[in-house]
Amino acid sequence: MIAGTLLALAGGVGGAKLADGLAALLGDRLGVIVNTGDDFEHIGLSISPDLDTVLYTLAGIANPETGWGVAGESWAFLDQAVRLGGPGWFRLGDRDLAIHVLRSERLRRGERLSAITADFCRRLGVAARLMPMSDAPVRTVVETASGPLPFQDYFVRHRCEIPVTGFVFAGIEQARPTPEILAALAAEELGAIVLGPSNPFVSIDPILAVPGLKQALRRRGVPIVAVSPIIAGAAVKGPAAKMMRELRLEVSALAVAEHYAGFIDGVLIDEADAALAPRLEALGLAVRVAPTLMKTPEDRRAVAGHALTLAGAVPAGRGSA
Amino acid sequence: MIAGTLLALAGGVGGAKLADGLAALLGDRLGVIVNTGDDFEHIGLSISPDLDTVLYTLAGIANPETGWGVAGESWAFLDQAVRLGGPGWFRLGDRDLAIHVLRSERLRRGERLSAITADFCRRLGVAARLMPMSDAPVRTVVETASGPLPFQDYFVRHRCEIPVTGFVFAGIEQARPTPEILAALAAEELGAIVLGPSNPFVSIDPILAVPGLKQALRRRGVPIVAVSPIIAGAAVKGPAAKMMRELRLEVSALAVAEHYAGFIDGVLIDEADAALAPRLEALGLAVRVAPTLMKTPEDRRAVAGHALTLAGAVPAGRGSA
Repeated sequence: MIAGTLLALAGGVGGAKLADGLAALLGDRLGVIVNTGDDFEHIGLSISPDLDTVLYTLAGIANPETGWGVAGESWAFLDQAVRLGGPGWFRLGDRDLAIHVLRSERLRRGERLSAITADFCRRLGVAARLMPMSDAPVRTVVETASGPLPFQDYFVRHRCEIPVTGFVFAGIEQARPTPEILAALAAEELGAIVLGPSNPFVSIDPILAVPGLKQALRRRGVPIVAVSPIIAGAAVKGPAAKMMRELRLEVSALAVAEHYAGFIDGVLIDEADAALAPRLEALGLAVRVAPTLMKTPEDRRAVAGHALTLAGAVPAGRGSA
Repeated sequence: MIAGTLLALAGGVGGAKLADGLAALLGDRLGVIVNTGDDFEHIGLSISPDLDTVLYTLAGIANPETGWGVAGESWAFLDQAVRLGGPGWFRLGDRDLAIHVLRSERLRRGERLSAITADFCRRLGVAARLMPMSDAPVRTVVETASGPLPFQDYFVRHRCEIPVTGFVFAGIEQARPTPEILAALAAEELGAIVLGPSNPFVSIDPILAVPGLKQALRRRGVPIVAVSPIIAGAAVKGPAAKMMRELRLEVSALAVAEHYAGFIDGVLIDEADAALAPRLEALGLAVRVAPTLMKTPEDRRAVAGHALTLAGAVPAGRGSA
């Protein structure tokens, strides 16, 4: 465990569940830097899928079946929008729509995404500080054999079916770590940084690609640990395993750790992957083996606890700048 | 009755009901010029209350209880928007929201309101041509003793409680009759023009204030008749009677006809006001007396029929330029 504050990096569902477990243990001592590379504009609305998944999850209103949107959702808007000639491929629920409409208006008025997100957290009673990785728009483009695809086209329209060859984070040169992120990093009581079990390529990498952010995280000198999104050669949710195969990587927690090599100090892997521990330790990493599937709120807290324990176990000397 | 086409001028509920009756009789031979002075921007959405009321009414999906919005509406969006700190005073239903979101995006992309409206009509199976009075924004401002109020502030927020002293149609100098309206006016088969039983001050007057439109309607040389929105000294719905009192006008069909003096050729009044007929005829108007309350679809068709009969009865010589 850690005494001070903690920074987590998160994408969608997996990162949101870990963040929820961490929030249960740490409350307002938790800050979450959230990927905004999946953000996009749709029928004039600014949509931030990962921010919303983390926010809804921490607010206790996430839809447990879909992994996105609000529980108990209704679809009157979408029905009517399609009837009026609008697109139906991106499913916007009636309740979910509120955050998109309000966010879009506030962005158009010049408010920063960070400030809007902080306000939404307060309104929904979320004590943890959710922080978009950037206030400037960054858009993940998935490179495929058939050409580049905007992320949501790849993810929702094409259901991740087209093999990927790489990723581009359009706009990343203009992105900067936000004042909120820099303040959280500068906090004297910061005890550790945790990479959630999110997709390394399209959830965590965009965050680390914000110019200056990866270096700032590393130089801060606190333990950085990752929770593997790969369990027994498969991703719990989403296209991470499929992407790894298409990128000719081994689909394993080892390949994830190698992807983060030189940046992380430790890795939390599932019991099913216990045999990988010696090879991970050989990379110089602290390793913790535990059940990492998060099906219940108790699971989330338990995995969060293991991540904190792992961070606390990183030997002195590691985690220093 | 008329053989050719007909142009109706309409605001909200009353005008929409008459337009519905006319559409039942005339189908695609009906064009409706709709007030857009009530339009406004709300949480980043471009809202056109009168256009939507007429469209929903002609599409058969209007909410009969409220006079605005869609029948069988749900409110999940509004609940969540208020929870997120958004305003709740203007009630946007889940289904209704679709038209605002799609219209706003299309306007932002540079499409004309007329073209968007024509497309929505087609999508909802409305054969009549609904035409906004202008593609350029016009905003009715209600002048009161406490200062000027944007129309929706006056109408929804203040529930018409503040006495009015006058009206300003901001932006009207930039407004022009649309190509669609000019084409409908130029049509050889145009048989008559009907002013719906809408509020003369904030529904019909903004339409007639579009530079050049009133003259173009009058010069077209077809009978122009009005259906009185005042029955037995009261408005069926809305603040027309209250406004007339505050403007120190008599609250009667006679005062309505006098308001349109020099522009209309005839007036349809309710049976309850039959005693006014001689005074209306003394103004040089053709007069028809009939039941004009529209409670059922049959009522709408009947009143529409009376308006057409009245237009057909305007003597030759009147209605010419």
